[in-house]
Amino acid sequence: MVWQDADAHEESLRSCPIMLNPLVRAIVVAAPLPSLGDNTGDLDRLKKALAPQLAGVMPVVPYQRLSKVAGRFRAAGFTGVALVNAMPGPPLLVDFLPQSPLVLTGMALDLGTTHLEATLVDLVTGAILARADLENWQIVYGADILTRIHHAASDEGMAELHQAIIGSVNELAAELSRLAGLAGDAIRALSVSGNTSMVHFFLKLNPCHLCREPYIPMVNAPDPFLAGELHLAIHPAAPVWILPSVGSYFGGDLISGVLASGLDQQPETCMLIDVGTNAEVIVGNREWLIACAGAAGPALEGGVARMGMRAGPGAIEHLRIDPVSGEISYETIGKGRPKGLCGSGLIDLVAELYLTRQIDIRGKFRPQAAGARLLEGSEGWQFVVVQGKDSADGQPVVLGQVDLEALMRSKAAMYAILTTLLNQVGVAFADLRRIYVAGAFGRHISPRQAIVLGMLPDLPLALYEPVGNSSLAGAQMVLLESQARERALELAGKITYLELNVNQEFMLRFSASRFIPHTDHALFPSVPVFAGE
Amino acid sequence: MVWQDADAHEESLRSCPIMLNPLVRAIVVAAPLPSLGDNTGDLDRLKKALAPQLAGVMPVVPYQRLSKVAGRFRAAGFTGVALVNAMPGPPLLVDFLPQSPLVLTGMALDLGTTHLEATLVDLVTGAILARADLENWQIVYGADILTRIHHAASDEGMAELHQAIIGSVNELAAELSRLAGLAGDAIRALSVSGNTSMVHFFLKLNPCHLCREPYIPMVNAPDPFLAGELHLAIHPAAPVWILPSVGSYFGGDLISGVLASGLDQQPETCMLIDVGTNAEVIVGNREWLIACAGAAGPALEGGVARMGMRAGPGAIEHLRIDPVSGEISYETIGKGRPKGLCGSGLIDLVAELYLTRQIDIRGKFRPQAAGARLLEGSEGWQFVVVQGKDSADGQPVVLGQVDLEALMRSKAAMYAILTTLLNQVGVAFADLRRIYVAGAFGRHISPRQAIVLGMLPDLPLALYEPVGNSSLAGAQMVLLESQARERALELAGKITYLELNVNQEFMLRFSASRFIPHTDHALFPSVPVFAGE
Repeated sequence: MVWQDADAHEESLRSCPIMLNPLVRAIVVAAPLPSLGDNTGDLDRLKKALAPQLAGVMPVVPYQRLSKVAGRFRAAGFTGVALVNAMPGPPLLVDFLPQSPLVLTGMALDLGTTHLEATLVDLVTGAILARADLENWQIVYGADILTRIHHAASDEGMAELHQAIIGSVNELAAELSRLAGLAGDAIRALSVSGNTSMVHFFLKLNPCHLCREPYIPMVNAPDPFLAGELHLAIHPAAPVWILPSVGSYFGGDLISGVLASGLDQQPETCMLIDVGTNAEVIVGNREWLIACAGAAGPALEGGVARMGMRAGPGAIEHLRIDPVSGEISYETIGKGRPKGLCGSGLIDLVAELYLTRQIDIRGKFRPQAAGARLLEGSEGWQFVVVQGKDSADGQPVVLGQVDLEALMRSKAAMYAILTTLLNQVGVAFADLRRIYVAGAFGRHISPRQAIVLGMLPDLPLALYEPVGNSSLAGAQMVLLESQARERALELAGKITYLELNVNQEFMLRFSASRFIPHTDHALFPSVPVFAGE
Repeated sequence: MVWQDADAHEESLRSCPIMLNPLVRAIVVAAPLPSLGDNTGDLDRLKKALAPQLAGVMPVVPYQRLSKVAGRFRAAGFTGVALVNAMPGPPLLVDFLPQSPLVLTGMALDLGTTHLEATLVDLVTGAILARADLENWQIVYGADILTRIHHAASDEGMAELHQAIIGSVNELAAELSRLAGLAGDAIRALSVSGNTSMVHFFLKLNPCHLCREPYIPMVNAPDPFLAGELHLAIHPAAPVWILPSVGSYFGGDLISGVLASGLDQQPETCMLIDVGTNAEVIVGNREWLIACAGAAGPALEGGVARMGMRAGPGAIEHLRIDPVSGEISYETIGKGRPKGLCGSGLIDLVAELYLTRQIDIRGKFRPQAAGARLLEGSEGWQFVVVQGKDSADGQPVVLGQVDLEALMRSKAAMYAILTTLLNQVGVAFADLRRIYVAGAFGRHISPRQAIVLGMLPDLPLALYEPVGNSSLAGAQMVLLESQARERALELAGKITYLELNVNQEFMLRFSASRFIPHTDHALFPSVPVFAGE
């Protein structure tokens, strides 16, 4: 079974035998001492001594670091360790220490709409020193990006959203430092992987054109800058490197996914699926890459289903219904009492309801087949997954007809996205060598149940490979490797983006996918079809 | 007579047929409009459209300009004029205008210890639009650099000196804008030519090591930065380009002198003399350059002689004493009544006093030869140059024995500097093809009289060429031409600096030069020697 652990995949990325060329390097320098016969200035002396270790390129010193670097170099006796940021153009000399720092760290950040996740990375060894996550403070201004973009229409609204995200990042940075036992300004570099809107909020760029045709970002590939310019509570001279985006609906988090999965280096055609708030899909190989994105995610992310929740402690992650007794067995994350259903639990539940014929191919409850768990409420049928007496908070965990319909739309959108995209390039599902599934979705779902629902194509399970939080993994890669940074920038220029918002074919395919598994059963030979309903 | 006008020399520099490649360029761009099929971000679109006009190099946008540049590009309908700063590494894209600015200007600044002088330059045509000067506001903290360096020992003192110089520059910038009828932020670039101490004050760098052996600056060649970083009252995105220095006593103002005189491009050996607060001398050709500096200037700059003053309105610029009648005739700058003597007037006066035998070879008054103009006061002999009734303010213009002695020290230092330097490289005065004389000193002095005093070598007058304010001329050149900027940086690395503060040979030569014209009369064959004194 290829269905390997996502953490193991991340681990293997880190242990690749790549010469690290991180965003910041500590370079040992011993310069000749000044004398009457050598009146080179302090800073000029340091730059001259450094150049041979920078492939002969003279580093540049930004004005705001000039006095500090020159003063510390002199105070250290003209010997010590220079900190040099990798930047477009000449390297940036930003600090000088009397001796090598105990540890030189960078922060890799997955800047999600709902959650932020970050790691503190040792820039010399590549080791992960700490890991933390946090709910995005912007949520008070709107759970979804569109609400936030509207909120940003006023200057105050924009400032609030910007402050909220900077505050979130600073809180996360402080938490990482606490976990690693380091001072806050020990973080000497930051890489940021997020969707295009989040990057706009982070940089305080007006996001209003992101959601208006023709959906053009203010910037896809912002140039690196220093953390102090954004008032980030890490070292002010830390370079901030932002993963480039391809368009409004295809952000740097997806570029990270391509980097982490290696999709762009495969000889054979593969696919990457990332389901967060949106479903984002990329297909291609080392020759070409095409991508699209659509709103397939909400039902799976805790945003829509009433009992839905993010994949965290208390979420029902996997679920079975005994076909004979109708008994429900489940596993929760953290093994505690259940609080709700995360995306994978929801997919399992609906697939099992279909396989036990308690819902029909349209995703409607079949009261004649469902047992005592199906109750009629003020908002229509409700299926009781867990009784209140067995749940974490005394409230039953239920699935309503409304939730079911939201999931049906999501699964239809997902399949329509996949087929529209493949059709665009004349590739069949059978041509795919591998399907990488990113994020919590990829980590927890059982592809088999997603196939039953007709959400993912009916392919051998061995083709599906979870890649974990590839947005974060990509951010870690660019923090550590110049090749990854170059690849990211090339990718942003290389990926063709297919706009689905105005795509007629997508709408037709979406309609055809609103059945379990599909209107065309032949597409899902492994899924049982029940006649005579 | 080669003794041409210094202004004409500056004019000829400007009319050189050099392709201008100024610090800031306005580049017309018409980018393809965004569409559903082209989701390039606004800024990425602009950069892509610009690159072919920047030798294929992608420009970089600093974070603090990102939102403005992208927003203005969109507001202008994706067509207009990009402003691009020349920087080390990739060009810096800093602004976007809907149409070409009426005039794109830069400020060239001579950052003098006593006075600041600046021009507003049209960066497209190279024309000088305005010219202004100002007394350095730092003077309240000390007339000489050493006093200011001591004042800077405390943080408050340093802040005061920095604020004073920034205030002076801002005042001068405002004056230039007023003169040209432009808004203050119309100044889009700044080049700065000053001595090493002034540049340290300007950049708020601790100057304490400049005057301590081995006299090492914090930086000789600071990297360019944006005016906003220094809170300058010109456009915040204006690049600030500082002429590099060679050492503590050899500043960017001298590099400017080399640029403006073309010393570094001559096949035959020439010399450049710049007398300000210090006397600074460079000798060399296109193969090699050697320089030194020493305190030869004070007596000539209005700092020492009681009646001394800067070359400005009311200063006696030239003076003759009739050898028969003893009558004094003079010219003042501005043709008004005299207020005092500037350096050239002082040199003329003392040379004429020697030629009319009213002072001896040691620079002592000869009461037996001087007439009624020589009076005995509380501080020794005083020579009345102009009676109070004929002067501008009713006070007589006088030359005291103390002033005479200060001038004798200055002239001795100057000749000792010249001979020590030439001896160092085995070059004789007769080998020099040309002697460029910079600054007000060069503009006003009569080389013949300086030769009489033994201040300048006894060479044909045709060899001496005034080059005007070459510090300012060099600043104008780097504002306009990338070749000049490259030359300046190369020069800073190429010039050998000879430290005189610890030079024994200099001290011996200084002693031998404290006579008119010299202890060795054979060195000055054209100067009459009076026997039997």
